[in-house]
Amino acid sequence: MRTVVVTDPPRARAELVEKLAPFGVATVHEALGRTGYLGPGIRPVHLGSRIAGTAVTVLSWPGDNLMIHVAVEQCRPGDVLVVATTSPSTDGMFGELFATALRRRGVRGLVTAAGVRDVAELHAMGFPVWSAAVSAQGTVKATPGAVNVPVTIGGQTIRPGDVVLADDDGAMVVPRGDADHAVTAAAARTAKEDASREAFLAGELGLDRYGLRERLAGLGIEYVDHDAYAARGGSDTTTGS
Amino acid sequence: MRTVVVTDPPRARAELVEKLAPFGVATVHEALGRTGYLGPGIRPVHLGSRIAGTAVTVLSWPGDNLMIHVAVEQCRPGDVLVVATTSPSTDGMFGELFATALRRRGVRGLVTAAGVRDVAELHAMGFPVWSAAVSAQGTVKATPGAVNVPVTIGGQTIRPGDVVLADDDGAMVVPRGDADHAVTAAAARTAKEDASREAFLAGELGLDRYGLRERLAGLGIEYVDHDAYAARGGSDTTTGS
Amino acid sequence: MRTVVVTDPPRARAELVEKLAPFGVATVHEALGRTGYLGPGIRPVHLGSRIAGTAVTVLSWPGDNLMIHVAVEQCRPGDVLVVATTSPSTDGMFGELFATALRRRGVRGLVTAAGVRDVAELHAMGFPVWSAAVSAQGTVKATPGAVNVPVTIGGQTIRPGDVVLADDDGAMVVPRGDADHAVTAAAARTAKEDASREAFLAGELGLDRYGLRERLAGLGIEYVDHDAYAARGGSDTTTGS
Amino acid sequence: MRTVVVTDPPRARAELVEKLAPFGVATVHEALGRTGYLGPGIRPVHLGSRIAGTAVTVLSWPGDNLMIHVAVEQCRPGDVLVVATTSPSTDGMFGELFATALRRRGVRGLVTAAGVRDVAELHAMGFPVWSAAVSAQGTVKATPGAVNVPVTIGGQTIRPGDVVLADDDGAMVVPRGDADHAVTAAAARTAKEDASREAFLAGELGLDRYGLRERLAGLGIEYVDHDAYAARGGSDTTTGS
Amino acid sequence: MRTVVVTDPPRARAELVEKLAPFGVATVHEALGRTGYLGPGIRPVHLGSRIAGTAVTVLSWPGDNLMIHVAVEQCRPGDVLVVATTSPSTDGMFGELFATALRRRGVRGLVTAAGVRDVAELHAMGFPVWSAAVSAQGTVKATPGAVNVPVTIGGQTIRPGDVVLADDDGAMVVPRGDADHAVTAAAARTAKEDASREAFLAGELGLDRYGLRERLAGLGIEYVDHDAYAARGGSDTTTGS
Amino acid sequence: MRTVVVTDPPRARAELVEKLAPFGVATVHEALGRTGYLGPGIRPVHLGSRIAGTAVTVLSWPGDNLMIHVAVEQCRPGDVLVVATTSPSTDGMFGELFATALRRRGVRGLVTAAGVRDVAELHAMGFPVWSAAVSAQGTVKATPGAVNVPVTIGGQTIRPGDVVLADDDGAMVVPRGDADHAVTAAAARTAKEDASREAFLAGELGLDRYGLRERLAGLGIEYVDHDAYAARGGSDTTTGS
Repeated sequence: MRTVVVTDPPRARAELVEKLAPFGVATVHEALGRTGYLGPGIRPVHLGSRIAGTAVTVLSWPGDNLMIHVAVEQCRPGDVLVVATTSPSTDGMFGELFATALRRRGVRGLVTAAGVRDVAELHAMGFPVWSAAVSAQGTVKATPGAVNVPVTIGGQTIRPGDVVLADDDGAMVVPRGDADHAVTAAAARTAKEDASREAFLAGELGLDRYGLRERLAGLGIEYVDHDAYAARGGSDTTTGS
Repeated sequence: MRTVVVTDPPRARAELVEKLAPFGVATVHEALGRTGYLGPGIRPVHLGSRIAGTAVTVLSWPGDNLMIHVAVEQCRPGDVLVVATTSPSTDGMFGELFATALRRRGVRGLVTAAGVRDVAELHAMGFPVWSAAVSAQGTVKATPGAVNVPVTIGGQTIRPGDVVLADDDGAMVVPRGDADHAVTAAAARTAKEDASREAFLAGELGLDRYGLRERLAGLGIEYVDHDAYAARGGSDTTTGS
Repeated sequence: MRTVVVTDPPRARAELVEKLAPFGVATVHEALGRTGYLGPGIRPVHLGSRIAGTAVTVLSWPGDNLMIHVAVEQCRPGDVLVVATTSPSTDGMFGELFATALRRRGVRGLVTAAGVRDVAELHAMGFPVWSAAVSAQGTVKATPGAVNVPVTIGGQTIRPGDVVLADDDGAMVVPRGDADHAVTAAAARTAKEDASREAFLAGELGLDRYGLRERLAGLGIEYVDHDAYAARGGSDTTTGS
Repeated sequence: MRTVVVTDPPRARAELVEKLAPFGVATVHEALGRTGYLGPGIRPVHLGSRIAGTAVTVLSWPGDNLMIHVAVEQCRPGDVLVVATTSPSTDGMFGELFATALRRRGVRGLVTAAGVRDVAELHAMGFPVWSAAVSAQGTVKATPGAVNVPVTIGGQTIRPGDVVLADDDGAMVVPRGDADHAVTAAAARTAKEDASREAFLAGELGLDRYGLRERLAGLGIEYVDHDAYAARGGSDTTTGS
Repeated sequence: MRTVVVTDPPRARAELVEKLAPFGVATVHEALGRTGYLGPGIRPVHLGSRIAGTAVTVLSWPGDNLMIHVAVEQCRPGDVLVVATTSPSTDGMFGELFATALRRRGVRGLVTAAGVRDVAELHAMGFPVWSAAVSAQGTVKATPGAVNVPVTIGGQTIRPGDVVLADDDGAMVVPRGDADHAVTAAAARTAKEDASREAFLAGELGLDRYGLRERLAGLGIEYVDHDAYAARGGSDTTTGS
Repeated sequence: MRTVVVTDPPRARAELVEKLAPFGVATVHEALGRTGYLGPGIRPVHLGSRIAGTAVTVLSWPGDNLMIHVAVEQCRPGDVLVVATTSPSTDGMFGELFATALRRRGVRGLVTAAGVRDVAELHAMGFPVWSAAVSAQGTVKATPGAVNVPVTIGGQTIRPGDVVLADDDGAMVVPRGDADHAVTAAAARTAKEDASREAFLAGELGLDRYGLRERLAGLGIEYVDHDAYAARGGSDTTTGS
C-alpha cells in the first residue's frame, strides 16, 4: 500500500451531482447497465435518507482510524466520505465527533466497509451513515494508510471525485466520467418506469408489457392445471436453496 | 427442475385465513407444535406489519426474475407471493413496480429467500415485504423456473395455496390442510397465554405456574448462596458459546 | 457445566449504576481502555433505548429456556437479564410473557446471545431487548444450566452483579469492582469529547487537536497533488478488503 | 413436530442403488435436471469417499442426539443415516461410537446438517461422514424428535428410503421413485461427458461443440482487440461481486 | 486493556499434561461436563495432529502481531501459544518464522482466533496450528496488547498455564486447577467408551445400553409402521432447519 | 456491464512469471507492501500446489457459465483462468470438462470467486483450483458477461495479463507492470527471511532482531511478575473478540 494523501482530486461537476441526487440507487444502477452497486453488505444505519456527493476516499488499517483524521482536512462541501480497510473489520472507526467535523466542512454523509458507533447521536444530528456494522469497539491511531486513492468496496472501485449515491437500498458509485451519461440514462429509465407503473396500475401485466410470453414457450415453460399436475405426482416435488 | 406453471391451485379457505391473521407468527408456530417457521434469516424490511394470505409460489434461477413476472398473472386477491431461488442469492429481484402490479391484483405482501430493492418506495406505498437481503443489484429475465410448485425456505416446504403468516418475528407457513386446526389451536394457545400474562402481572412465577420446581431437583440443579459458591472457587468458572 | 443457581450475588451499588446510565456504551467502553464491549453481533431489536442495570446471568442449553424461568425468580429491581447459551443458537428463547414477568420484578431489559420473539409486543410494552437474532422458533424446558455464574458473550465475561449498559451501539459490561472508576472515567471522557465537539464546530481539525501531524511524517505518509500522483500512474492502484 | 418413529419404510431397490453408486454427485444432479443437491454447506470431513445408500432420516432437537440412538435400530445394511435439526446447530452430535454401531448394521455413512466429532477416529475406521461442521461440543438425550419422516437439508427434501449419494462434491438425494430414471439419465449424461472429454482432448472448443457462437451475437457480446478497447478507456472498468 | 506482560505464570504440572495428551478433545470435553471447547470455528490447518501443552496467552490488536514477538520470549518447553485479538480478524499474524522461533524454545503448537500463513511450510516442518482462518494478509507491529493475561476464544477463558489440548476435532482448555481431575475423569470416560464400543461391536444398541427405551414413551415418542403412517398423510410432513 | 470479449491482451513476460513462481504468496504479498492478496475466502480445494501464470479474466452472471466457455478460446499456455461473478454465488460453474479443455491449451489452474465441482476428478488429473466454494450445483449458459476486462476478487483488481500466484495460503495478483519489481523485492525479502530463520534457529529473538524492545516501553507495555500481577487482582481480567 502506498502511504499517500492525494490532494485536490478533480470532483464530478456539482450540477451533475445535484441532478443525480433525486434518483434512487436502484434506478441509477440499472441505468448504468447494472454496475456500481456496493452490495447488500453496506446498509444505512437508519432508514429514510437519500444522498449524493463526491467521494473522498480513505484506506485504513483494521482497528485504526488515523487516516480518517487525515481525510477530514481533504473534504469540501458536497463530498461524501468513503472508508475502506485493508482487511475486513467491524470496528467502530467513526462516530459523532467525526460527523461534527465533517458537517462543519459541508460533507453529506459517510459510506464505510467497516463499523460506526454513536448511532443514536448520529441520528439525532441528522448525519446519515451507511456501514457494514455498528460497533462500539474503539480504534487506535497508529498505522498509516492512504487518502484519495482508488478503494474497493463490494467489488466496486471508488475513485476520489466519483459520485457516490446512497439511500435505503444501499450505496453505489458513478465514475466521474460517467456522471453526465448517468443523468441522462437515469432520467430515461425513470420515464420508462413511470410509464410501466401507470400500465400496471391499469392492470397490464409485465408478461405483456415486456413481451415475455413468447419467450416462455421457447424456454420450455409449460402451463398445467393444478389437478392435472397433481395427477402426475408433481405436487411432491420440493426444492429451493 | 420442472419448468412448469401450475394454474389454479386450491387455496386455503378465506375465512380461515382471516381468522388466522390476528395471531402472531410465534403463537401459531407454537400452536402447531413448533413447526412451519421460515427461520431467522427472513426478516421484515420495515417493522410494524402483520399479514396472512394464501401462497403463490415461485422458484427462480439466481439473478433472474423472469418467473416473478409469470407469477403475477397467477395471483388473486388475498394471496401472498413466496419466492425461492435454486441457489442462494441476495440480488434485488423485486421492487416497487412488482409491488404495484401485485397490489392491483389484491396481493397482500411478499416473502422471499432472496433480496428486494426500492425499499423506501415499498414502505411509502405500504406494501410489506419479508426478505433475506436488501440489494439494489438488478436481475435478468433469461432462465426458466416454476410457479406454484412446492418450494423450500428455511427448511420449511410451502405449497401453493398454503397459508403464509408474517409479522415482526418473521414468516411461517400453515399447510392448507392444517388451517382449520391452526385456528383452533392458536385460539387455545392465546387463551393460555392471556391467563399466564395475568398471572405474571399478579406476581406468579413461571417456575410455579408451569410446575417446574420439582423438575429442577430431578435435573440435578442445586441452589447455592453466592458466598458459599465463591468459597468453593465457583466464581472463576466462565463459559458461553 | 455446573448446574447451579447462585443466589443473592452482590450487585454493583445502585447509585453507581444510576450515574453510569446516561453515558453511552461507546463512551464508557473508551473510558475503560476499550474493554467490555459485547461485540457487533448483539443488536437492539428496536433503536432508541439506553439502559443500565445489574446483571443476573443465565447459561442455557441451545433450544431450551428452562433456566430463564429459574432466573426470573433471582431478579430484583434494577437488574438486567443476561442470557448465554452453551453453543450458538438463534432460537426465540424469550418473548413477551417473560418480559411481563421481569417487568413485574423491576427488571430493565434483556441482553441475549441467542434469539428473541414477540418483538412487536415487546416494543409495544416498552421492554428493551438486545439479541443476536429475532426468531419465532420455540424452545423446550428439558435440560439444566446455570444462573448467576460468569458467562461469556462476544469474548467478554459478565459476572452476576456486574453493570450492564446497552444502547443503539450494542451492549457492554462494567465489572462490579470497576463501576466507581467507570463513572469518573466516563465523566472525564465526556468532558474531553465536549471540548473536542466545540473545537470541531469551530473548525479545528483532529489532526491539530490530537497532535497527529508530526506523527504522519514519521509514518512515511506523503502528500501529493493529484496531478503529480496521476502522472506517476498512481490512480490505477485499487485496493480494499 | 410429530414425535414419531416410522418403521420399515420402503427403500429404493438395492440394484438401483448399486447402479447409481459409481456416478458422481455432480453427474446425477445434472442428469435429474439440476435437482437434489444438498448445497455447498454439507462437506465431507475427509476427501476421497463416494457412497450411495438408502436414507434413514432423523429430525433432532439442537444440542440433543437422543433420536440418533433411536434411529440406529431402524437401520439396515445399505442405508445411509441422514440427520437434520429443528434449528441450526453445529454441535458434535455424532462420533466414533455411533459409527461403530452403524457399521455393525451395515450402514454406509452419515450425512448431517449439524456437526460431527471424533473425526480422526472416524477416518481411521473408514466410516465416511458429510456434515456442516466439526465440533467436539457434546449433546444431551432429553428432547423428542422423529425418525423416518421427511426432512429438509439445503432446501431439498429427503424421505426415508430415498437414495442418498455423497462424494467430494457434497451430498444429494434421488427420490425413491426417480431412482430408475436416474440410472438411465446418469448413464446418458456420462456418455455425453465422455464424448465431450474426447473432443476437448482433441482441441475442440465448447463454443463450437455446444453451438454457443451464434448465441453470443444475439446476446450482444462484442469481440474487441485489446488495443482498440484500451483506446476507448475500457481498461479502467473494474467490477465483481 | 491493560498493556502488560505477565512473566512466569505457574504452569499445569508437566506430568499431568503428558497424561492428558493421549486423550482426544471430545473425550476430555465430555469428561469435564462438556466444558472448555473453543468451538467449531477453530480448526486444524492440516488434519492428523494431537497435542497437549501449557498455555502462553497473547491478546493482540487486529492486524498487528507485535505481541506475538513479545510472547515468544515468555515461552518454555511444553507450552502452546494461544492468540486472541481484541476484535475479529482473519489476518495472517503467524507464519513459518514464528514457528521456527517457537520450536527452538520447545513450543508444541499454536491455537489462534485469527489467521495463519505459510501453511505449506508449517506442514513441511511439522509445526501444528489451529486457527480461524488461513490468510496471507500481513500485519504490522504498532499497537500494544498483553501477554499472559486471561483471553477468551469461543466463549472459553484460557488463563496462562492452563492446559490446552488440540486435535482434529478442534481445541479446548483445561483449567490448571482441573488438570488432575481431568486425567482421572478422561480415563474413566475412556474406559466407559471402550466398553460401549465392545458392546456396539457385539450388536447391542445404545437404546438398551443407555436405558433410553423407557424414556421414549415418557417423551411421547410413538412407533408407527410406515404404511399406517402414510395412511394418515404423515409422509407429507417436511421440516428441518 | 459491457458485454465484451477483449482479445490478445498483453501478458506479463513469461520469464518474469517463471521467476515469481517459486516464491510463496505470503512472501510476494509482503514484498509488494502487503498488497494484492485475494483474501481468506479463496482457498485451494486440495492443499499442496503452487502456481504462477498470466490472468485471463471472466466476469459471469451468477448461476451461468457461458462466459467461461467463451474464455477458454482466449487462453494460451502459461495462463491462469480467473472468474468473478456480478453478485455472490457458490454454484459449481467449473468442473473436470473445463479443466480438460484448459489443460489442452496449457492453462495452469483456476482461481474463482464462485464454486467448483468434480473436485475428486480435478485432483486425479492434477489441475489445481482455488475457489470460494465447492458445489455440485449446475449452471446455465444464458446471460452475457465479459472476458478480459478488469475484475475484482477480495477487494483486489485483476487485469488481463497480470500475474496470478496461488498456493496453500490462497491467491494474489501482481499487476503486470509490477512483475519486474516483484521479482526483485521477493528475492530480497526471501533473503531477509532466510537470515531471520537462521537467527531464530540460533536462538535470537524477534524482539532483538527487529529492534522492538525499545518500542515496547514507548507503547506503555509493562512487565509484571505473575505473583505481583495476581496480587493486584489482574488475573480476573478476561477479554478477547
